[in-house]
Amino acid sequence: MNTPLSRSAFAATAAGAPLAPFTIERRPVGPRDVLIAIDYCGVCHSDLHMVNNDWGMSAYPIVPGHEIIGRVVSMGAEVTDLVAGQRAGVGCLVDSCRQCEACEDHLEQYCAKGFTLTYSSPTKDPGGLTFGGYSRQIVVDRNYVVTVPENLDPAGAAPLLCAGITTWSPLAHWKVGPGKTVGVIGLGGLGHMGVKFAHAMGAQVVMITTSPKKGDHARRLGADEVLVSTDAQAMAAWTGKFDFLLNTIPVPHDFNAYMMLLKRDCTMCIVGAIGPTANLNTGPLIMGRRTVAGSLIGGLKETQEMLDFAGRHNIVADVEVIDMASINEAYGRMQRSDVKYRFVIDLATLA
Amino acid sequence: MNTPLSRSAFAATAAGAPLAPFTIERRPVGPRDVLIAIDYCGVCHSDLHMVNNDWGMSAYPIVPGHEIIGRVVSMGAEVTDLVAGQRAGVGCLVDSCRQCEACEDHLEQYCAKGFTLTYSSPTKDPGGLTFGGYSRQIVVDRNYVVTVPENLDPAGAAPLLCAGITTWSPLAHWKVGPGKTVGVIGLGGLGHMGVKFAHAMGAQVVMITTSPKKGDHARRLGADEVLVSTDAQAMAAWTGKFDFLLNTIPVPHDFNAYMMLLKRDCTMCIVGAIGPTANLNTGPLIMGRRTVAGSLIGGLKETQEMLDFAGRHNIVADVEVIDMASINEAYGRMQRSDVKYRFVIDLATLA
Repeated sequence: MNTPLSRSAFAATAAGAPLAPFTIERRPVGPRDVLIAIDYCGVCHSDLHMVNNDWGMSAYPIVPGHEIIGRVVSMGAEVTDLVAGQRAGVGCLVDSCRQCEACEDHLEQYCAKGFTLTYSSPTKDPGGLTFGGYSRQIVVDRNYVVTVPENLDPAGAAPLLCAGITTWSPLAHWKVGPGKTVGVIGLGGLGHMGVKFAHAMGAQVVMITTSPKKGDHARRLGADEVLVSTDAQAMAAWTGKFDFLLNTIPVPHDFNAYMMLLKRDCTMCIVGAIGPTANLNTGPLIMGRRTVAGSLIGGLKETQEMLDFAGRHNIVADVEVIDMASINEAYGRMQRSDVKYRFVIDLATLA
Repeated sequence: MNTPLSRSAFAATAAGAPLAPFTIERRPVGPRDVLIAIDYCGVCHSDLHMVNNDWGMSAYPIVPGHEIIGRVVSMGAEVTDLVAGQRAGVGCLVDSCRQCEACEDHLEQYCAKGFTLTYSSPTKDPGGLTFGGYSRQIVVDRNYVVTVPENLDPAGAAPLLCAGITTWSPLAHWKVGPGKTVGVIGLGGLGHMGVKFAHAMGAQVVMITTSPKKGDHARRLGADEVLVSTDAQAMAAWTGKFDFLLNTIPVPHDFNAYMMLLKRDCTMCIVGAIGPTANLNTGPLIMGRRTVAGSLIGGLKETQEMLDFAGRHNIVADVEVIDMASINEAYGRMQRSDVKYRFVIDLATLA
């Protein structure tokens, strides 16, 4: 196959610059590589943080996007378990050291040497920067490519690669399932996936929110109950009732009041807010041997398991599909939380 | 036996009042009760907090003391597993609901209805206040009495009932043992017991302290290594090396730098600081699925296991024995951290 090396993309060329058309080279398809024609790419809040260099780690030009769904175009000679035309996905990481304990445990997201981000990250081979999914094509090592069940809507499936696995991984790790009561705190891109997965896993799901108006929608997504966290009486009634709390709030916040909702020896896992958040009150921890944990996206093996589970249960994200040219406007709406629950770019709209 | 109901004690009669001689009644020995003649009682920092009503829960008069070592004088008809003259101990709790899941799991310290503190707590039977171990006698339900190996020095054994079990319980719960690297943060009453127990359990023990001068003593207590937490280079060298951290620092402090010392999926358990402490930085949690936990003293079953273990390994606290009349002075020295590592009152000095 004779696919050109140059590809069109949308990129930011400096901190805060709006995304604009851009032409980049892709690497040639190596023996372990897969060339994917991208159909859809989800818009993650971290894309905006990276474009703005909010985390001080951005390298420009940036082609964002790590919720990538496409089809296999071609692959290297050593890739024998994929076929051209197959539905494939790429998430937040495209390489890791492959030798540390985390990599050997299929938890590449905790690679001791640091994994390679899907975009704005130095590449090992060849040297350069990674470019993400706001693009028509991507070349990725087979080990970091997942397959996507054909029955899933491809636009809705895109956010599974980040929002999906970020919620799936802790739900699976802390063994959420029948007989367990799970609280999902916050109803955004992550939270709405947490509700869907926890419900499909067979748990009793309680949506915990400050906004009573989100209740109806949470129930449609699979929540059995809605707990409004500003209602002191309701919070008291749920004290000590939860086996697990998935905290998806993406900004610093006071999480201490949630801790008392947990049963003894149970965990609240924070996946939303990265960095310093509120004072930790050790009282609820000490008085019930409760724990606060964190969790980062997921490894490749569990990402594949999540996609297979999503296929069996026909779970995708609720998305609003946009044209590539609308991305800067979408960023503005995302900052105002004006999206239910994820923007997804239709890459067919990229010339 | 005809032991009088009135007993001499030392009590505080108002917040901040110095402790002074006091005469109280004890309850008659009921069918499930044990009358203990107290030989030694440890002085816990919480005694001072309670005397001063720092936690807003003190009821006066207060007879403090919950690290009680004595000998069985007599017992009720239903107590068939103790003999008069036997060495016995009483810790932080003397009753609980006995019906909730925690009580059924032998974790009475997490009793859903709240356990009865050994002092300054309402009693169920008969109604009144509990009075603690700064006293010549105590009557306690058999279920809340532990037996103490005869080979242990009784003064040194007293702090096992609070400082000992508070560190033993999390070390045992998180399965510290051979092949594990454990950090004990802070070298006070709790920390020095943590070092001794973790060493006896067969772990590699690292004393983590801000004071290099504590290193030699930590090694004598059983620490294999000393990590000075203000030494950035040393902290970097120990990053990702610990299976468990026991944080015994008794005051609010910034604990976030310790979190990066943990391996993936490992826990720092806070047993010292109760209440709001520093901002929680979720970065180290999320980047390694690390957890922050709390733990409260221990249940009666594990307290007995701890004492039996201490007997086999001849482990007691390092103590300074004082006269009852020196208690107010000892409180002053305790506030200045001028004790290695626990004051213990010799109750023979109480008239």
